[in-house]
This record gives sequence, C-alpha cells and structure tokens, in this order.
Amino acid sequence: MSLPNLFATRIKGMKASEIRELLKLLDQPDIISFAGGIPDPALFPVEKFQAAMAKVLGGGNHAASLQYSTSEGHKPLREWIAAEMGRIGIACTPDNILITSGSQQALDYLGKLFLSPGDTALVGWPTYLGALGAFNAYEPRYDRLQPGGNRSAQDYAAQAAPGRVKFAYLSVDFANPTGVTLTQTEREQVLDLAEELDCAVIEDAAYQSLRYDGPAIPPILSLEIARKGSIDACRTVYCGSFSKTLSPGLRIGWVCAAKPVISQMVLLKQAGDLHTPTLNQMAIAEVANDDFDGHIEQVRALYRSRRDRMLAALERHMPAGVEWTRPEGGMFVWLTLPKGMDGAELLAQALRTEKVAFVPGGAFFADGSGRNSLRLNFSSPSQQAIDEGIARLGRVLTAALTPA
Amino acid sequence: MSLPNLFATRIKGMKASEIRELLKLLDQPDIISFAGGIPDPALFPVEKFQAAMAKVLGGGNHAASLQYSTSEGHKPLREWIAAEMGRIGIACTPDNILITSGSQQALDYLGKLFLSPGDTALVGWPTYLGALGAFNAYEPRYDRLQPGGNRSAQDYAAQAAPGRVKFAYLSVDFANPTGVTLTQTEREQVLDLAEELDCAVIEDAAYQSLRYDGPAIPPILSLEIARKGSIDACRTVYCGSFSKTLSPGLRIGWVCAAKPVISQMVLLKQAGDLHTPTLNQMAIAEVANDDFDGHIEQVRALYRSRRDRMLAALERHMPAGVEWTRPEGGMFVWLTLPKGMDGAELLAQALRTEKVAFVPGGAFFADGSGRNSLRLNFSSPSQQAIDEGIARLGRVLTAALTPA
Repeated sequence: MSLPNLFATRIKGMKASEIRELLKLLDQPDIISFAGGIPDPALFPVEKFQAAMAKVLGGGNHAASLQYSTSEGHKPLREWIAAEMGRIGIACTPDNILITSGSQQALDYLGKLFLSPGDTALVGWPTYLGALGAFNAYEPRYDRLQPGGNRSAQDYAAQAAPGRVKFAYLSVDFANPTGVTLTQTEREQVLDLAEELDCAVIEDAAYQSLRYDGPAIPPILSLEIARKGSIDACRTVYCGSFSKTLSPGLRIGWVCAAKPVISQMVLLKQAGDLHTPTLNQMAIAEVANDDFDGHIEQVRALYRSRRDRMLAALERHMPAGVEWTRPEGGMFVWLTLPKGMDGAELLAQALRTEKVAFVPGGAFFADGSGRNSLRLNFSSPSQQAIDEGIARLGRVLTAALTPA
Repeated sequence: MSLPNLFATRIKGMKASEIRELLKLLDQPDIISFAGGIPDPALFPVEKFQAAMAKVLGGGNHAASLQYSTSEGHKPLREWIAAEMGRIGIACTPDNILITSGSQQALDYLGKLFLSPGDTALVGWPTYLGALGAFNAYEPRYDRLQPGGNRSAQDYAAQAAPGRVKFAYLSVDFANPTGVTLTQTEREQVLDLAEELDCAVIEDAAYQSLRYDGPAIPPILSLEIARKGSIDACRTVYCGSFSKTLSPGLRIGWVCAAKPVISQMVLLKQAGDLHTPTLNQMAIAEVANDDFDGHIEQVRALYRSRRDRMLAALERHMPAGVEWTRPEGGMFVWLTLPKGMDGAELLAQALRTEKVAFVPGGAFFADGSGRNSLRLNFSSPSQQAIDEGIARLGRVLTAALTPA
C-alpha cells in the first residue's frame, strides 16, 4: 500500500504525543501515575449536566440543539463568555468570541491562520506539548521566547529570516508543564516585544480559573486593552477553555480577539468542521449560568489541598540536587534534575522498580533539550496516592543520584 | 491593527461560503427557501437522545462521558460502525475507523494529510462546496474528474506537474449538489484511474443511507476490497456521517480506511482537537444501537415523498429550456438553465419578486464556471411549500427566459 508515500510534507513533522501514548499504558491499577493532565471526575457537576441536557433536549428545544448551527457559536454562550472576559479586564462583545472544540482546536486554527512554512513561532523552553503538536502541522521554525531576557527584537527578527516571527505563544498562569506564572512585568515585556516585532501574541489561559493563592495577575489581553483602548486594536489572541472547570469531554473552548481575527477564524471553523456541537454549547451555557463561581471554588479547594500535599511530600522525599516549582494554581509541578540525568530513562526505571509514572520533560522542548526534567500532575491522584507515589519517586531518584 | 497582514498565504484562498452567508439572510418567515441543506428536525429521534443522555450521564457513567478520551474515538461506536460497514460490503475492524467531528472534519484532515501546496485534487465540476472549502486551506490545484471520460491518466499527471495528483474526491450517491449517483462502471473507472495515477480516492458517502428507490450500488471501497482482498491494501478512504440520519448538531462522522491511513489521521486528530466529544460519541452509540434501520426507514419515507412532490412540481412549472436531475436519494435536485443565464442574478430577482430562495450553482465549480445552474433542497420544506415555491420559481424563470 503506497498511500503513505502520498502524504503531504507537513506529515513528517507530526509524531505521536509521548503523553497520550503513555496514558494508554498506565491502566494497570497498581501503578501510581503523575503522568496525566486530566481533571478529577469527582468534580464534574454531573447533576447540573443532567438537568441541562434534559432542558436542551426537551420542551421543543431539540429542534435547535440537534440541528446544524452557525460557525461562530451559540450566541447565549458567547454572551456569557464575553461577560466573564469583562470580569477579568477584557472588555469585549460576543462578536469578539469564537467557540472552538476545546482550546486545542483554537491552537490548531491559530497555526493555520498565521503560519506559512518557515515562519517562526516564539515559544517557551519548555512549553505546552499540544501547542507544538498543533503548530507542527504548519511547518514553522521555533525560537525561544524569554520575556525579560536580554535578546533584542532585532535579534529575534534576524533569526527568523528569511521567514518572519508570526506570534509569541505562551501559557501565562500556572503553565503546563512548569506550573510557573508570568509576572505582570513579564507580560508587559511580551507586549513590548510583540509591538517591536509586529507579531501576534497567543495567550493560552486554559488554567486561568485555577488559582489557589496569591493575587490574580491581569491577562496580557487586558494589559494591551489598557494601552490601546479597545480589543479591536489589539494583537493578543486569548484562548480559554471549560475543560479544566466544567468538563473536558464536551470539548468547549473559545478564542477572544479583535474582530478581524475572529471573522477570519470563523471561516477556518466553517471549513474545518462547520461548528462545535450545538447541544454541547447549549448545555455548557446552562451549566455555566448555574453558580459557576461556586463550582470553581470547590475545584480550587480540592486541587489546592493536593498541590499542598505534593509539595510537602517532595520536601520529605526528594534527594539533594532535585529542584521543583511551587505553582500558585493549575495541575502541575515541574522537577529539574542534575544535568546529565534523563527523564525518559528514569521513567522506564520508575515503572519497573517502583510502579510510579510521570512525564519526562524532554517532549516539552521544541529543540529536544531539557531531558533532565519531569512533570508531575497533582489534580488526579488522591492524597494517599500522592504521599505514596512521591515516596516511591524519591527512592527512584535517590538511587539514580547515588554513585554506583 | 496589522494582524491581517500576518496571516498565512493559505488564507487568501479561504472565502466565506455563499451558502452559509445566505442561510443567515433567510430567516424571514415569508420566504420559501430551497437554499438549505439541512435535515427536517421533525425526524430527529429526540426521545432516543433523551434516554441516551440520561444513560451516559447517569449511574456512574458520567466519569467517562464528561472526561477526556482517546483520539481514535469511542470503541463501542467504532465497533458499531465497523459492523455497519460490513453490511455494505466493507469488511473491516474498529482499527480501520476514526471518529471525526462530522464528515466535514474528515475532509479537512484528509486535505491536511495529503495536500502540499501545488498538489492536485481531482474533483467533480460541480462538487461539494464544503470539500473545496476544506481543501483550499492546503493550497491545492484542482483538475476536473470525469469518470469514464476520454482523458488518459498520463494527461491528468501532465496537468498536475510539477506537483502531482494526490487524490480523486467524489460523492458517490445522490451527490451534493447534483443528486446524481455514480454507476458501478464509473466507480470501477475511478479505481482504474487511481491505480494508474497511484493516488488516493476519497469517497464521500454522507448521503449513502438516504436511498429512496433503485438498487444500492456498492461503495468504491467495497469494490476495491473485492479486487485486493483486504481493506488494508486499499487506497480508497470512505467518509461517513450521522448528520443526515440521526443528528447533525452532535457532529459525529467517521473515516474508514486502511490502518496506515487511520493511524496517521489519529495523530492529526490528536494535534487538531484531541478527540471528538466523548458524551456525543457515547450518546450516538446508544441511539444507533436502538433500531437504526427502523429510524432510517422513517427518514427515507418523508424525504421520498418530498422529492416526488418536487419533481412533479418541476414538471408543471418549469419553462422549456430548463433541465433537472431525478435523484434516487439524498436532499437535492440540480437545475441547468440555458447557457448565459446567471444563477446569482436570478436569486436576487427571485428574492425580490417572488420571495423564493435557492443556491446559485457557480459556487460548486472549482473553476468558477457553471453559473447557469442552481441547487434546490427538498429535505426541509413541507409539501405545500414545495408546491408553492416551485410555482414561484417557475414564474421567475419563465420571466427570465421570455425575450423582453
């Protein structure tokens, strides 16, 4: 069968995500896994979804909820999101919102919108693996974004030649994979750089609601609106999601941006899959309108306690030479091991000797560096599993760090 | 705001679909519209969807239905589809099936899989507008596919140089927009051509279940399996959908193809939107397992009566010089007007003088020809609306054909 010989050039750059391949192998019940990145299903507001589905499928609503709908998305949901954006400093209208099938789809369509082969995307070292996966389809080059670093805009531009820098992509709050939050100064520096480079900023805010302590920092888009007076004059594209707050299985995310960006993305959406499922958008709108803040407070309380438990366990069990982040929210802690150690080799060892799993850090680096790092998830495992799993990980790392 | 200057080169080729722009303007209740392409919502199996949603959100199932799931799709749904494929001559396993968010997404991902800029896609003149929209993102050239025509494979290949022909795309049964069905001989000729060109065949079977009379003709993929012995040796990629049978609003379609194609498309799906909503896949699997055949028989009965009504009304009201297709299924009749007439101009006139709408045919032609044609939908309007609307259309065309 010769079809693979017919694949487009972009396919060479698209490989299986190590994380998703890993997840398939971790079904055995005796493995303690910190490898996932998924919400605890005990937090899903299931009664609210049951009531919402009964409503949108009942009383004559089914003719709309089961039918085709518009590519931009369900108007009442876009209205709810626009109001929510206003609460975090992003004044906008429903015409600034496009509903996507999860924020992963927003990243795919933003790659499609901006990247011609050879263009440059600025990303963190490390960055969200799914962003690299989405962008790779459009054959970009990557350069390392360092807000507040000492590289000039001219240097970034020169590195991108003969292509150009199209956007800076970054996750601002409790980033996947590091858990690190950008300071307000760093956010302003990203905007300054984007102005000098005349490029877009893609602000991935998937974890924005999951802050457990410390004061909220304004989104980059809100800082740019403060500079320019209107969202429609802004170069920042904000990507939000209900996956970490209400349910990932419904696949509802959104893009909030200037109207010229949204109207072009609506055409990509139309060409890509017509629209996000009508029923799902209507159901999410119902559930979001039913005490969203109260629900988020429950989510925060549970994950906060698990983060605290993981940080305490790391203090007890990690050998000298291992460093880790102290995230103010989100789902992940990032460990940095002494240079020369290899997260992928350690995973094989950890699974064999201690039945504990994590994600090796190398996959999050566009240049293949960072092998001496690993990502731990604290949103899924129970407190007991965290205690036991981190103890096991401590034994693995202690053994690896002990000279033979 | 300079962001549109940053858009990728592919964006130039992506324009708004005339049909979807039209649909927005047709909300006035006094317009009789044959412009849509949507199912009659009276046919949605709403009680079955209510029961299915209650089940997949109840009794502990919600932990799965609201959670992330795998990119290839819900296993029980892939099993149901594989069995259904077997019934139409396509022997396959669930590993030959990828669930997509509607068959529109299958077309987007197939464009992404095969097309590098400048490669050639063979399509009908006319063809499905949404296929052109999906493929345009990958900057192909188009050439006219004429099964049984007198062009040699060498001629197609020469026209494609310096790129190459990557696939032939066609809708085989009651095609959108023409309503025409490919004969078995023509299907074999497409396979012969694809063998000579060493290209893929994309078989769009969105309307496959909606046959109202005449014997079923085997899908191209089944004819190729008969030649080669196994789906995994085949170059045909079959795209199916639940949008015309159960509900378009849930956005569930599928691709059925050789495993090397499916495994690569799973990676595109993962990078594109992680997976199709879990809840929707589980609900569709429940509903499909509950007397699918009985439900389809109801759908066929209603649309058959509307098609008959439209064909009878066309006989009564169309002036000499107008020709139309007699589809054996699907949702559309295609009218060809005398050369020199312009469907888009006629639509403006028809809306103004008679308040009747249709889709001008030009948009369905990759080369911009075919302006003297128009598409009529018979799945949405009632029998009375069909009678009255075709009478109105008859007056519009009679006036246009009468020398001033």
